[in-house]
Amino acid sequence: MQKIKAALLGYGTVGQGIQEVIHQYQERFRLLLGKEVEIAAVLVQNPAKQRDLPENVLVTTDFEEIITLPDLNVVLEAIVGEEPALTYLRRSLNKGIHVITANKMMFARHARELLETARENKVHIGFEATTAGGTPIIRTIDQLLQVNRVEKVEAILNGTSNYILTAMNDRFIDFDTALTEAQEKGYAEADPTHDIDGTDAFNKLMILSQLIYGEQPDWLNVRKTGINSLTEADIQHAKQENKKYKHIGVIKKEGNTIIAEVSPVLLSSTHPLHHIDGVDNALAITSDIVGTITLTGPGAGKLPTASAMVEDLVQIFQKEHAEFYEKISEKHAAV
Amino acid sequence: MQKIKAALLGYGTVGQGIQEVIHQYQERFRLLLGKEVEIAAVLVQNPAKQRDLPENVLVTTDFEEIITLPDLNVVLEAIVGEEPALTYLRRSLNKGIHVITANKMMFARHARELLETARENKVHIGFEATTAGGTPIIRTIDQLLQVNRVEKVEAILNGTSNYILTAMNDRFIDFDTALTEAQEKGYAEADPTHDIDGTDAFNKLMILSQLIYGEQPDWLNVRKTGINSLTEADIQHAKQENKKYKHIGVIKKEGNTIIAEVSPVLLSSTHPLHHIDGVDNALAITSDIVGTITLTGPGAGKLPTASAMVEDLVQIFQKEHAEFYEKISEKHAAV
Repeated sequence: MQKIKAALLGYGTVGQGIQEVIHQYQERFRLLLGKEVEIAAVLVQNPAKQRDLPENVLVTTDFEEIITLPDLNVVLEAIVGEEPALTYLRRSLNKGIHVITANKMMFARHARELLETARENKVHIGFEATTAGGTPIIRTIDQLLQVNRVEKVEAILNGTSNYILTAMNDRFIDFDTALTEAQEKGYAEADPTHDIDGTDAFNKLMILSQLIYGEQPDWLNVRKTGINSLTEADIQHAKQENKKYKHIGVIKKEGNTIIAEVSPVLLSSTHPLHHIDGVDNALAITSDIVGTITLTGPGAGKLPTASAMVEDLVQIFQKEHAEFYEKISEKHAAV
Repeated sequence: MQKIKAALLGYGTVGQGIQEVIHQYQERFRLLLGKEVEIAAVLVQNPAKQRDLPENVLVTTDFEEIITLPDLNVVLEAIVGEEPALTYLRRSLNKGIHVITANKMMFARHARELLETARENKVHIGFEATTAGGTPIIRTIDQLLQVNRVEKVEAILNGTSNYILTAMNDRFIDFDTALTEAQEKGYAEADPTHDIDGTDAFNKLMILSQLIYGEQPDWLNVRKTGINSLTEADIQHAKQENKKYKHIGVIKKEGNTIIAEVSPVLLSSTHPLHHIDGVDNALAITSDIVGTITLTGPGAGKLPTASAMVEDLVQIFQKEHAEFYEKISEKHAAV
């Protein structure tokens, strides 16, 4: 059986999820691709840590050992922060290796460059996991709405914020209590600044902009307000009117200008995002033919993120298969 | 510019929607396929009726004139009822012509045979429009959840029933008033029997079963209860407990047995389908890796249905393109 040779960059929660899923689902890969997927190497920060990995997996802190692996087909990246992730992915793409990333902060800033580098090197970059976790929003827009033109997206893109707003609304608890609760349940990071102040939702919105419009607005022109601007009184007052505050990212075009904003928005009960509670993410996508469809699902977490990445993997190698034959036939046609 | 030659079977609301969209979106087809799409012929019931169609379009009541058109690539079918639609599609597939259908009643019963016939003739059959209208549920399950195994689907699959239940719940009106309202707004058919008694939702559930499990349960073993079994008292009693009746189709597997049921179900406010109101359809899909994702959108209507069919069309011809090269290269390899 032929193998797809993969390397995993980062072995935190998401990295472990990918490893587990790839290990468990070999039968599906055989069925879908006629190949198995082998994780040949894992890039880690602390080599001394005990890890439950097969013996033949190279565990290293040195990216050089990974990039020089013979016949490496794909890099799955689950590192936090811009660098060194960007450098690793750039080098992988330039070496003709496919890339799948869950790194929203890095990808928001460098999507354009990386997509261009992928194109130049005739490889693919999967980024489903960067936005709304396991909810297949990127592929829905990219593949299922091709004739349709997306006119507007309104979205709940941060589960931590949504958890806090839901708790404040439903149980009359204050912001700090709700945040502590979210942290205890593992929904919020130890430093939740980027969840709370809208930065995380902003990053995902910029990735959506790149996907939908092929470009991003000037970041300085995007208003970004977090949920920390809301008081308990605001939320209870809204509730009395059967409304709810939700932390919403909006992106649309007015003429040739992309308009984007991230902020708490007061939604009436008929709005498709009004009822999205807890840690779920949701996107209401309005297109010119079909109208508004809404996707709701887990926006983060070990298995949902791994799900997005292995679905990316399957699609990339299905595509590669078709393109391989296309290249062969072009060669034949040229002869 | 090369053309994809299409024939349209049926020119009711949906047929007209397809014609309008194909006419308007040539630029998209050129961009996505490098080809234009030409509706070469339309099959109608009444040839005397005034229609706003270009002069060079063949308008006929005789399917023979359509199936014998030279170089016909695809048939788009928007007829109501099992026959003659089935015969037309069978003949089209056997002649190597791709098929795209919106006919849920016919496809529920004959999906297996038609999919098999398509495979044998190396053509495709698009059926996104049969289930949940413009909401891209078929392609989400088929393409975006390939590694994931769908474990259960719970769904609101009939917009008329949902409209009636919503009106009864929100505005305290009785069943007959709500039904009349739905008919006046064009949501219900003149004969709404199949909406009300669960037959329409059942048909869509059987199509989902075929897609997910590759087979359907014995129809006689599927319990089917319509919303006409509910009284206003039931609905108001539920409301007092912050619950709602929704008309739900469920499909799942227990061991090797497919379990399916269509019936009114009392949902608590935390259920993902509790808040789906009005004419929308919605599907909560639970898979083994990602968990539950929910898709909500227009379940019927002229443009949503046309949207599903033109998106099918683009995907079929993108696939055909890849397979064409694959076949060429196989030939080369054999030489």
